[in-house]
Amino acid sequence: MTGTFIVIEGLEGAGKSSAVALVNDFLVKRFPQREIVNTREPGGTPLAEEIREIWKQPRQEPMAPITELLMVYACRAQLVETVIKPALERGAVVLGDRHNLSSVAYQGGGRHLSEQVEALSNITLGEFKPTLTLYLDIEPSIGLERARQRGALDRIELEQLSFFERARQCYLVAAENDSAIVTIDASQPIEAVQADIISALEQSL
Amino acid sequence: MTGTFIVIEGLEGAGKSSAVALVNDFLVKRFPQREIVNTREPGGTPLAEEIREIWKQPRQEPMAPITELLMVYACRAQLVETVIKPALERGAVVLGDRHNLSSVAYQGGGRHLSEQVEALSNITLGEFKPTLTLYLDIEPSIGLERARQRGALDRIELEQLSFFERARQCYLVAAENDSAIVTIDASQPIEAVQADIISALEQSL
Repeated sequence: MTGTFIVIEGLEGAGKSSAVALVNDFLVKRFPQREIVNTREPGGTPLAEEIREIWKQPRQEPMAPITELLMVYACRAQLVETVIKPALERGAVVLGDRHNLSSVAYQGGGRHLSEQVEALSNITLGEFKPTLTLYLDIEPSIGLERARQRGALDRIELEQLSFFERARQCYLVAAENDSAIVTIDASQPIEAVQADIISALEQSL
Repeated sequence: MTGTFIVIEGLEGAGKSSAVALVNDFLVKRFPQREIVNTREPGGTPLAEEIREIWKQPRQEPMAPITELLMVYACRAQLVETVIKPALERGAVVLGDRHNLSSVAYQGGGRHLSEQVEALSNITLGEFKPTLTLYLDIEPSIGLERARQRGALDRIELEQLSFFERARQCYLVAAENDSAIVTIDASQPIEAVQADIISALEQSL
């Protein structure tokens, strides 16, 4: 595949949306001739967005952790097969708000399902992975406070702090072991975060 | 677990609904003191039924085969974890309209995803399996004709005949290799089908 797949990752309130906007602007300027495709997970296709709605919504019926995991991989499979891979084959730059690393962190770390996440990654993605992942690292307590100020919390955002602490550890360990994941200190002032993001892009692309 | 899990399986138009009603009547009479829980797949919980709706509905966006597979296992995981296992632990008899064997047949055989079905069975169910499965065997062309007479076809029912031929082969092979799966010749007159179902129940329970 000839395209480039860039992913923004991080906990609630780490600043992913601002980072996506910043990276999108950078890409538009840097690659004026190339198609840029924005995606988000879970979701990114009409079908996957419908599953996302069911997945995010707090509900009376308790969702089994393995159900949560399978739903998120169903979304990911649909997005990768019908949107991301075809776009990369056309030579596009794909910019993703979350991808597989979110499952490694949230369902693997948060829900203690690391083995199942690995098996599902293999079934769903095989060797497919992003060209570059920017992981926005933030202390969960700070990030969640920011998320709360945005409004009503979804099913995941309502989890205990320890859930997010475990997810963060998984993010950090993954970043240590994979040179295609760059950790950005998201607790810095916004200008410094943005400078680090641009510098990571300059170095990698 | 102390309960009993009985599953009715078969292609479209094999007579599953009539068989479920018959078996339910049999169970009510045979076990007047025991709780009987009816389920269906994909579905059987409010959450799983919502996913079923998305899954069944013909749509413009092509559903990747792996997406179809992951969605059906998300439904199955939710039903098994939140309904079937708790019921069996209470000592209930659970009567299921379809279960894992449908994925072996439809997604494994029909969609050529046997390896992925096996991996997902392991992740989602481990060693968990029905006490008894009654497989209603019918030639796909006959079954589909019956299904058509019932009304509008869903996304799966709209598949080619060869899809159902492959599914049927998987059903037959599975039944040959597992003594807990009893094949019923569903092309017989209804009275003979019913007699075979009752006789299989008498022998197994």
